[in-house]
Formats: sequence, C-alpha cells, structure tokens
Amino acid sequence: MNPLAGADILDIPSLRKADIELVLEAARAFEARLATESLIPLLRGRVLTTLFYEPSTRTRLSFEAAMLKLGGNVLSVSDTSASSVAKGESLADTARTVAQYCDVLVIRHPQPGSAREAADAADVPVINAGDGSHNHPTQALLDLYTLAKECGKLDGLRIALVGDLKYGRTTHSLAQALVHYHVELLLVSPPELRMPAWVTEFLAQSGVPFREAQSLPEAMAEADVVYMTRIQRERFSDPTQYERLKGTYVLTPELMAQAPRRPIILHPLPRVDEISPAVDGFKEAAYFRQVRNGLYVRMALLALVLGAISGAKEVLG
Amino acid sequence: MNPLAGADILDIPSLRKADIELVLEAARAFEARLATESLIPLLRGRVLTTLFYEPSTRTRLSFEAAMLKLGGNVLSVSDTSASSVAKGESLADTARTVAQYCDVLVIRHPQPGSAREAADAADVPVINAGDGSHNHPTQALLDLYTLAKECGKLDGLRIALVGDLKYGRTTHSLAQALVHYHVELLLVSPPELRMPAWVTEFLAQSGVPFREAQSLPEAMAEADVVYMTRIQRERFSDPTQYERLKGTYVLTPELMAQAPRRPIILHPLPRVDEISPAVDGFKEAAYFRQVRNGLYVRMALLALVLGAISGAKEVLG
Amino acid sequence: MNPLAGADILDIPSLRKADIELVLEAARAFEARLATESLIPLLRGRVLTTLFYEPSTRTRLSFEAAMLKLGGNVLSVSDTSASSVAKGESLADTARTVAQYCDVLVIRHPQPGSAREAADAADVPVINAGDGSHNHPTQALLDLYTLAKECGKLDGLRIALVGDLKYGRTTHSLAQALVHYHVELLLVSPPELRMPAWVTEFLAQSGVPFREAQSLPEAMAEADVVYMTRIQRERFSDPTQYERLKGTYVLTPELMAQAPRRPIILHPLPRVDEISPAVDGFKEAAYFRQVRNGLYVRMALLALVLGAISGAKEVLG
Repeated sequence: MNPLAGADILDIPSLRKADIELVLEAARAFEARLATESLIPLLRGRVLTTLFYEPSTRTRLSFEAAMLKLGGNVLSVSDTSASSVAKGESLADTARTVAQYCDVLVIRHPQPGSAREAADAADVPVINAGDGSHNHPTQALLDLYTLAKECGKLDGLRIALVGDLKYGRTTHSLAQALVHYHVELLLVSPPELRMPAWVTEFLAQSGVPFREAQSLPEAMAEADVVYMTRIQRERFSDPTQYERLKGTYVLTPELMAQAPRRPIILHPLPRVDEISPAVDGFKEAAYFRQVRNGLYVRMALLALVLGAISGAKEVLG
Repeated sequence: MNPLAGADILDIPSLRKADIELVLEAARAFEARLATESLIPLLRGRVLTTLFYEPSTRTRLSFEAAMLKLGGNVLSVSDTSASSVAKGESLADTARTVAQYCDVLVIRHPQPGSAREAADAADVPVINAGDGSHNHPTQALLDLYTLAKECGKLDGLRIALVGDLKYGRTTHSLAQALVHYHVELLLVSPPELRMPAWVTEFLAQSGVPFREAQSLPEAMAEADVVYMTRIQRERFSDPTQYERLKGTYVLTPELMAQAPRRPIILHPLPRVDEISPAVDGFKEAAYFRQVRNGLYVRMALLALVLGAISGAKEVLG
Repeated sequence: MNPLAGADILDIPSLRKADIELVLEAARAFEARLATESLIPLLRGRVLTTLFYEPSTRTRLSFEAAMLKLGGNVLSVSDTSASSVAKGESLADTARTVAQYCDVLVIRHPQPGSAREAADAADVPVINAGDGSHNHPTQALLDLYTLAKECGKLDGLRIALVGDLKYGRTTHSLAQALVHYHVELLLVSPPELRMPAWVTEFLAQSGVPFREAQSLPEAMAEADVVYMTRIQRERFSDPTQYERLKGTYVLTPELMAQAPRRPIILHPLPRVDEISPAVDGFKEAAYFRQVRNGLYVRMALLALVLGAISGAKEVLG
C-alpha cells in the first residue's frame, strides 16, 4: 500500500515531501504512458463524484478527464443552488450521502474548511478542489510538476509570484509546497494585495528566502520562473491606483523581448488582461502545458488515494 | 424473460407482490456481489438518460451510479429550464426524442401523471423518479429493502410514519407497497399534515391495520421502525402552531435513550432539523444505509427492465 | 487515413461532396451494426467534450450518445454562464484549455463564427453544433441522411422548405448541402421570413433550381418532401399578420389526408404548433426517425474525425 491510499487530500501542509514526490513521480509515469495509450484502465468500475458548489470548468474537467483516462466513471453535481442544498441539507449530510454512491469525492466550496468538513462526514477519500481562500492543493501539485518539468529541477529555482497574492489561493498553496525545496521567492504585488502574513511567516519558519520585488520587469530580470495571477479591479479601494498599477502587471511581448534571460511563464488560468495573447507564441509561455499537466497529476492522485498503484513503477508496468 | 423486462415503473400499485419480491431479491444479489466486485457489467453499451425537471441530487446520482456499476453509460438532462422545454416543446415530444438516444429513461417532474405521459410517448422503458405528490416508486422499493434488511423480515412489523404525511409522497408510496405484507402502521403528524384519505382508504381496503399516534415518543415506544420525514414550516397557516408542534417531531439522542426498546430509524433524506445529527451514532440510525440501499435496488430495476437478468440467480451466477 | 481525419467540421461549404458521401455511408454502416449490437467500441479511451454556450438538449444528447455507443467517454460543459466565461476568459482560451483534456470538441455558441474561433485555438478537431444563425452542419448531414433513407435517393427530389427561412439556420445549412445533388427547392415562408439572399445566391450560382410557393397545401401537392420549421410569433412586427399566416403553416391530419400524393414530413424539432401531434401517426411523418438518424451521422463524424475508421467498410467489419 502507498501512504496516500485511502487518504484525504485537503491541503498542502498535510502532505510530507515524500507524499509530494510520490505524486509527482506517478504523474510523470502517467504522462509517459499517455504518449502511446489513450486509456490506462486502473480504476475500472470505480466512480468519482465531483461536488462543485462554485463553478470551475477547468478543475472539474481536469479531474473528470483524469478519472475517465483511468477507465473509471464520473458523476457530476454542480446544480447545488437548486438541490438538496436548497432544501437546507448540511454539507456533512450531502457529502456523506454522495459518498454512498461513489469511491472518491472531489469537492469545491467557497467556505474555507469545507473540504475537511466533507472529509469528516464521507466514508471515501475526499480531494479538495479549492475551499475558498484556504487551499487548492491539487493546483499546487500541478504547479510543482510544471516547474520541475519546464526547468528540469526544483532545487535552485528563483520564482516570482506576481499579481494578487492576497486572495490568490493558488500562490498560497504553491508557496506552502515550495518549502520542501531549495528555492527563492520574489513577491510582486500591489500594496493592497500583498502576500498574507500567515504565508510569509510559514515561509520564514521553513527557512525559505523571499523578498518583495517592485515591478514585473524587475522580476523577469531576476527570476527563472514568473507565476502570474489575475488582478481584479474590485479589490482596489481607489480605482485610480488600479489604473496606475495595472500596466505594471501586464505581461506583453515587448517585456518578453526585453528580458535579458527569458523566464518560464506560468499562470493558473483563466487569464483576463494580465498576459497578452501575443505572449502565447513564446516557447517560455508554459501555461497551456501547465493545464495539461493537471491531467497527469490528478490521474496520479486518483490512482494513489484509491490504492490502485503503490507508485510510479506500477504505472509504467 | 422476467415479467418486468420492457416494463415502465410508474407507481407502486401497478406492481404485483411478485414483481416487488423479484426486485428485492435481485437487489440483495447485487449487494452481495458488490461486496467483492466494483463492476458488474451486465449493461455494457446500454445508455440511461436521467431527465430531471426538478433537481434531486440524491435520486439522480443513485440511478446514475447504479447504471455505471452495471457497466452502462449515462446521459443527464437537468437544464430543463433553458432547453427545448423553454422553446415550448411538449413533455411527450421531449420524452420521445430523448428515447431515440437511449435504452431507458428515468424522469422526475413536478406534475402528477407526467411519468405516465412520458412513458406513453417513449419507445423505451420509463422509470418514475417522482412525479409531484403522486408517486416515487423506487424510493418505496428501497424503503422496503431497508426495512427487510434492518429488521430481518417485513411481515409482523409495526411501522410509524412520522411528520408531513400529507405532502410527503415517499410515505404514500411506502404505504401502498406495505399492503403486500402483514404490517401495522402508526400515523404521526400534525392535524394540518394528515395522511390523505386516498391513502388511508387504500390501506383500509387492503386490510392493513393503521391508527394515528399523538407523539413521536409514543410512536417510538410502540413501533419497530420509525420512518421520519421533513416538516416544512411553510405548510402551516398558523406559525405559532408550527413552533409548538415542531419539537414533537424532532428526534434527539435523549428520545433515543429514553425509548424502552429502540426502533430502527429511517428517513428518505434530506433532513433539516427533524433528526439531530447526534442521533447518527446510534446503531439503529439506518438512514445513511438506506441511501446506499438505493443503489442496489436501482441496479436491480435497471437490469430487470432492460431484460439483462431474469432474476437474482443470474446476478449471483 | 480518411480525408476528414483530424479535420474540423465547421460548415457545409467546407465539405466536398466526397466528404459528405463518406459521412453518409459510414452512418449507414453504423445504423446497420446497431441493429444487432449495442456497442461498437472504436473510440475506447477517447474523450469528447461538449461545450454548450446555449442549451440544446437534442443536439448535445445526440453527440454524447454517439460517443458512448462508440465506447468513448464524455465531458459536458454547459454551466457557461457561471464559469471561466463569467471570469472574463476569451472563447479561444476556453477552447484551448478544454482541448487539453479531450480528443474532440463539440461547440454550440450564439455568435456566428465562434466555432471557427474555437477551432483555431484548440489542438483537437472541433465540430460546430450551431453557431448562431451561421451554420449547423451536422443537422444538415442528418437531414441529408434522412432524405436519402426515406426517399431511397437524393437526386431527383423536389423538397419544400417551409416556415421561418430567414432565421432557421437548419434550412440554410441544408440548402447548402443540397447543391451537391440534383434537387429542386420550393421555398415557403411569410414575406417577413424569406430565405436570405446569401442562401438563394448560393443556390443560383450552384445551379439549383428553386422557386417560392405560396402555401403549405401547394407545397404538399408538388413536393416529395416537406421540411417544416418553427415560426416564432416574435419575428412579426404586425401580430395580426402572424395570426393570419399562422394557419397556413400548420400541418394537420386534414392536410395530410387531402394531399394527392403524401410527401415525407421532416422537422428539425422541437416543434410547437406547426405540426399537429395527430400527424405523428402517418407513416410519412419521419421527424422522430430523423432524430434517431442524428445518432448514426454523429457516430460517423466522430469516428472519422478521430481517424478510427477510413470509411464504411471498417464499420461493417
């Protein structure tokens, strides 16, 4: 048995480095096998339910595609506004009920802590697909996977996190995951959207060097990887400040061309204006490859928590 | 061929006792096989469509999971507010159209009689998953299954139906199903929410002894099984009466502890306040097992109406 | 390799006659095999995503059922009002993202040209399931299939297109497809809802004889096939004119009985009042068979664009 068999995947701090490496290695094995096969039927007869209290096309499809590629089946619940929830059922009851029909549950919910609440109630493994501003562990794992693949390594990287570091839970989860590696972080955000103290304290306690950088061009000059995030106008009390800052955080082909050494560009997507579509053609623009990596990482997670593999070796068969 | 092959399952009175026993026996066989297997591929290549004009996470997922566990496939239609229906298509046309793409149709619709309307139009078997206040036959069958499993028998049971007996179609369908067995019914409801005359007349004609009981503790003292249902505040003309009565129908750990002989507790779910979560830990609290039983019963129904089995023997085979 | 392998199916004019014949022949082969088999597993492990920005139960289910009957799997996105789209993501980004998780993409979108936009962004074949008033190529193909099957031929047919010829994209796409055959068209519509000039010019340039007819009875007397469409009251500036015209375009059993030689009746459905349900019993009423044909045609399209067959021969095995 692998150490994740039967486990809930609720947040990054609950995972040991060995767990993370196990997921990344299994994901690499799935990527290798999908190059020549369209189906790896390790989960035949198993059922995944996606229980989404907030819409998220990307994350939902990624999990569902991962389950299908493993030969398993999928049930979707996303009409939560109008179902049992509307009849006043508690999250715990819904999770426990849905768990009667499936083997693994993926939940997205706006409330921090909701994934744990569901996991406590359900008799099957629960994977957190985002619980409000709290955590989004599978995004962090696919981000790690992408960093390692694009850069050939994790140790030694200097990574800039850019944009809304206050509300962007993907940067929080990624920062928590990176404490297991020898990296340096550059934090680039407007003052209103600084990285929260609970994250920077976690970094400091973990001995991860980090500092703030003032602008995107500065970050691009220094970093191996620039992780962009979406800034929302409504986060600013002063609209003129938003207008002033906006341009600082928009990645253009000109900025790419000017960079002394072009960094790898990541983004959890969806993007709005913060990366010009004209950047997509640069080979360093890795964000659509990053999307694809989500498939491999989620296949690994599903196969591991359902105990269908003990590690990468069995995937490669 | 089994007698249900090709049949519609529209309401309980249309089923003979032999039909009901056939379903229950097949359901037991599926439960037994699922203990060691995750897939029983009797319906490979067959397609179920769930056509839900009202949301019902529980019932929809239960049917869909049952189909997947049988190796079949599922199509879902639940965006009825915005589809052909919105374009003015009749239910008959929608049902007949959808039936072109599938092998069996499960329908939920707020209008009593709608399931029969769909069945008349569609060329495939139709299963009623609730048509307004009329009938919910598959819930009644899974309730029977649960009663038999929890109590070891159906004949000889004294069963209390508690709560909203007027609008709660699950109690109507269950009462109709119980006329095939030697049971005694206790009816426990506020005066506003009494069991309708068409149900009690059916019981009387069928020779089922029934009487009203005044309170939940009284019912618990006398009954082998207490079947709780949700009472909705909006059903009461006088809110003060609701407040007064409410507590009478709330099952608490204290009531469980006081009961001279603890009854089995069922509930079709979702619950709101009428069963305290603290009751869940009692071994007599069977409502989540009841949910799971829905999977076995619906597997049996699907395999039978699609003619994939003639009875329980072939499932165990 | 067949010439459609890897291709997008965006509109009828992009298809050569040989492409159309290839699809129709493969569809016939699938129909033949489904008569004895419930599953033709040519697309095992492949994933179809339906990306519907407008609801369309019929078209979505038809594609999804086709994929399932081929042993493939399906992901559905229809909550577009509340997902990435709502976060401001471009159609191109959504299409490119979704394409990371699947092997073929079916899109419906209210904007003419949107299917091509998606196809330019996505790395997988894209099939247009209706882009506003522009095109609905798979409906035209299933209409051709139905014409050929019901009449035993395409060449030599006189076909009446009746109703809303202005906004009804199905008649536009069908007219474009018919230019490959020796047919004659009768156009029957209120003055407000005449066939647009871009369609009639295309017909004229292609040498297809067409003329207007004044009434449904006239069309029924002359045509081999009457293709009915829905007329929407809101299309009329003058409601009294709608009331006056309405009856002219309602097909009744009386009209069927009066017709000197009964034509085959088609309709893309859903219908509202324009065909009386009492017509359904006539053997010439082919519109529900037409629905079923959509399954065969879409199986053919999916198997061809995914390169699973080179033509009909391989389907018949």
